Amino acid sequence: MTGVLNSPADFTDEAVAGLVSVYPRHLRRVYGGVIRAGVTRPGKVAVVIGGGSGHYPAFAGWVGPGLADGAVVGNIFASPSTRQICSVAAAVEDGAGVLLSYGNYAGDVLNFSLAEERLRADGIEAVNLPVTDDVSSAAADDRARRRGVAGDLVVFKIAGAAAETGLDLQAVTAVAERANAATFSFGVAFAGCTLPGAQRPLFTVPQGRMGVGLGVHGEPGIAEVPMESAAVLAERLVGRLLDERPAAAGERVAVLLNGLGATKYEELFVLWHDVRRFLLDAGLELVRPEVGELITSLDMAGVSLTVTWLDDELAELWTAPADTPAFRRGPDPDGLPRSEVAAPDELPQQFADATDASRTLARALVDTVADVASLLHDKEAELADLDAIAGDGDHGRGMTTGCDAALIAARSAAAAGAGFAATLAAAGDAWADKAGGTSGALWGNGLHAAATTLDDQKAPSPEQVLAAVRAARDLVTTFGKAQRHDKTLLDALIPFVDALDEARSRGATLAEAWSEAARTAIQQADATADLSPRIGRSRVLADRSKGHPDPGAVSLALVLDRVGRHLG
Amino acid sequence: MTGVLNSPADFTDEAVAGLVSVYPRHLRRVYGGVIRAGVTRPGKVAVVIGGGSGHYPAFAGWVGPGLADGAVVGNIFASPSTRQICSVAAAVEDGAGVLLSYGNYAGDVLNFSLAEERLRADGIEAVNLPVTDDVSSAAADDRARRRGVAGDLVVFKIAGAAAETGLDLQAVTAVAERANAATFSFGVAFAGCTLPGAQRPLFTVPQGRMGVGLGVHGEPGIAEVPMESAAVLAERLVGRLLDERPAAAGERVAVLLNGLGATKYEELFVLWHDVRRFLLDAGLELVRPEVGELITSLDMAGVSLTVTWLDDELAELWTAPADTPAFRRGPDPDGLPRSEVAAPDELPQQFADATDASRTLARALVDTVADVASLLHDKEAELADLDAIAGDGDHGRGMTTGCDAALIAARSAAAAGAGFAATLAAAGDAWADKAGGTSGALWGNGLHAAATTLDDQKAPSPEQVLAAVRAARDLVTTFGKAQRHDKTLLDALIPFVDALDEARSRGATLAEAWSEAARTAIQQADATADLSPRIGRSRVLADRSKGHPDPGAVSLALVLDRVGRHLG
Repeated sequence: MTGVLNSPADFTDEAVAGLVSVYPRHLRRVYGGVIRAGVTRPGKVAVVIGGGSGHYPAFAGWVGPGLADGAVVGNIFASPSTRQICSVAAAVEDGAGVLLSYGNYAGDVLNFSLAEERLRADGIEAVNLPVTDDVSSAAADDRARRRGVAGDLVVFKIAGAAAETGLDLQAVTAVAERANAATFSFGVAFAGCTLPGAQRPLFTVPQGRMGVGLGVHGEPGIAEVPMESAAVLAERLVGRLLDERPAAAGERVAVLLNGLGATKYEELFVLWHDVRRFLLDAGLELVRPEVGELITSLDMAGVSLTVTWLDDELAELWTAPADTPAFRRGPDPDGLPRSEVAAPDELPQQFADATDASRTLARALVDTVADVASLLHDKEAELADLDAIAGDGDHGRGMTTGCDAALIAARSAAAAGAGFAATLAAAGDAWADKAGGTSGALWGNGLHAAATTLDDQKAPSPEQVLAAVRAARDLVTTFGKAQRHDKTLLDALIPFVDALDEARSRGATLAEAWSEAARTAIQQADATADLSPRIGRSRVLADRSKGHPDPGAVSLALVLDRVGRHLG
Repeated sequence: MTGVLNSPADFTDEAVAGLVSVYPRHLRRVYGGVIRAGVTRPGKVAVVIGGGSGHYPAFAGWVGPGLADGAVVGNIFASPSTRQICSVAAAVEDGAGVLLSYGNYAGDVLNFSLAEERLRADGIEAVNLPVTDDVSSAAADDRARRRGVAGDLVVFKIAGAAAETGLDLQAVTAVAERANAATFSFGVAFAGCTLPGAQRPLFTVPQGRMGVGLGVHGEPGIAEVPMESAAVLAERLVGRLLDERPAAAGERVAVLLNGLGATKYEELFVLWHDVRRFLLDAGLELVRPEVGELITSLDMAGVSLTVTWLDDELAELWTAPADTPAFRRGPDPDGLPRSEVAAPDELPQQFADATDASRTLARALVDTVADVASLLHDKEAELADLDAIAGDGDHGRGMTTGCDAALIAARSAAAAGAGFAATLAAAGDAWADKAGGTSGALWGNGLHAAATTLDDQKAPSPEQVLAAVRAARDLVTTFGKAQRHDKTLLDALIPFVDALDEARSRGATLAEAWSEAARTAIQQADATADLSPRIGRSRVLADRSKGHPDPGAVSLALVLDRVGRHLG
């Protein structure tokens, strides 16, 4: 818990007041909890859910058409009182009786049972139904002792939908009981939650381990095992639930993958990617699965998986419309659906026709990139040291990652028959995609810009090479938002291009001019240090107190020097 | 980060694949990110948003009708590459051009600008618009240097709605720029986030302090101050944003209260309760405020507040329909709205007419309850010690809390003219509401059950008192799901009622019988310890290794004994 509160005593009241003010179209506040803002059809069975708070969106986030008519809100992890339950039930009951449903915990059972009794004494037909989905809390043949966890949502949703269809209390109760009997949940905890105002969590899990069989009130689990990869964890969760597959179950299941609070959405989607695979491999049809924070336990880290075995009626009720603050089912979004296509890991490659001459040059380019990659791997540690002086030390890794990707892409393009320009463009794009960061984007897009000045027909003339180099420089200058002497790769690139132009204007061959310009770049990249290919780790570290070269300029100069050797 | 992953390198890809499989009605996957599952109207301007991942629901959760056509998904906290952006944009652009919008960070600016250039080179009209809402990251007169945080959502939503209305690219861009200029965000951090696979968080905030001016990529803030109450924090957040209220701003504002990941919903609602008050006090009209996790930063703890000053057009676009996985705007829920009523802290009290005799007895009951409360306060520490042997040590506190509440309710009822039964019932209900737990529920409902056998007309006869006591015992027996000798308050209650019956059958007066039965209860509550009013802290602790009395039975016996003194 991060401690956003005024006082622990007022926490729940203020949270309910805040919630209702965010959702005035959905909720009204009554003593003991919240009810629907809209008047319901006369004669509809009322569905009232509830339990302690600290579990949002359970329970107050699920009040609205198609789900609950009211939610009773206890204090953090504490049952609401009998009178609170009666207050919420009486506010929404309209002559057709009320189903009270909640997770199976002693305090809740006590108060909801007492409320049922009191409501009946007041002439209101009432039934109470505890949800018992948690497979870790009791054996399969001792179902009535199992706790209620995320399966609450499936049971409540189905009961709410059944009530909307006009079934009477007995029929709504029967279908909700069938949904409960068909619902199984299993979870793991990675870290405990902290109560509002408390200084430490209710329990802890050692780093690298996880508690198996968590509860949602800070119960830490029934066993502790080493942390598992998402795939292994998915197999554990799915396997445990399939172990209890009822004999009469069909293939259709509602599925919930629930985050307890501090296990975030991206993690849940990664886990779902594996959970889904195991469920599909078991031949199951997944009906409107839900992945997200459904029943939280404050800031507890952990996940739970819920499966409900659906028959026709349960499936129809599970997929029926609902509109609550935190759970909605509506019509599909507008627009004709696009066709489903396999997710591409790479863009499809289509290369323009190329001449044999250009293809030969493309293969030479592959050799050059391979040599540069080799150079960069040799220098990776030194570049990292250089970067660590003023940056985060990742420049060496960024360069090798980018160049390795460029090499793979160039090889693939050349093997597919691409010409020189197309191969260079593919290398640049791959560099940018994989290296990341400003440096990767500028390197990759610079190479790509150079390629766009060339073609796949003839070997480029020296003037075309110069134009390509200038295009790369222009791109880096325009988008890099830096000047020469700003300690960026421009400190090598600009003098390189100037020296190349100057040497060519003196009549030097391209290879001579390039080689000369690369030496200039090496000098300009660092006026104080003896960098060049002989640069040494100890020397760089010793230079920390002095002016130091920019790693981006150094690596560019080294690459330009190496490329020159291939122009002979 | 709790470590649900297979490998850091595959994390983002698997998360996107998982997300798309949960929302097949909304999303399709393309190279670089996700696009709408539905085909859009020909001629509609495309809106493409994006940035690094780790911020869900930003950005992929906001793709759908009324919002974005596509989202580009970079690695965790890293800009997507130029080619990824081009891929997503090309997949959704349909001849009317594309608006590229994203948070203002160097890597994103670079890649989205490069993508704009490349798209144009490919004949696609493109504009890029960085969002700059974070007031902590640069001065007000240096707006272009401000980062983009949760204000992204408002700008994207307004741009998406504008595109749906059929505006052209220039007009959509203009309204999105106006929305951005009108949007201001300010946040605080309580704890840093941990990258997938990392062993420690990117930064930490000392316990009891908070970082002011957080970023959403692990930037810890620009200053550190002591943790504040929700009300003080709300004033800080609102005050900072009102400081930059534009001169031409009206009263209408869109408001977002955003949780960064580990600051949970109940906390956000508590904070919103105060934020809303300060905004209303400033004379503002809050248009469809959003409270929840909007732009997270993995499992970072923190909150941010965003205000967008709305004109007529911006307000209309902000409230327009939208249907995406994580953000929806639809018609109001079904049903005529119930009237808005002030949230009651207490149920309205309506007491039946009572005779003067019964009112006199009610006042005597108040005195009795006051005496019992005094007794329980005296014994609170000893009861806590007793409870700590086998329980969680909260029994003493539960009893004083319940009895104090009962006293307040009884006083209030008696002062309002309630008779004896109504006053006893009110005391019981208050006890159950405030004490909580099984003990509180049984005490409160037991008193309430006793009251239902009585009336507000005549002083109860001894036989009526016995019937009331039996009703309480029956309720506790029925709902407490325990037997005598189970170490519950039944260990005192059952022998008390039996002894009371027996003494009355011998012809003792009610006062004599009660007093005798209370002594029996004290003995039966503990056969091994010398409890009674003389029970001592050291004695209880010394008894830990032996059989020990049940605190619930002890406290009941003590109360019964004290009540007996008032029956004389």
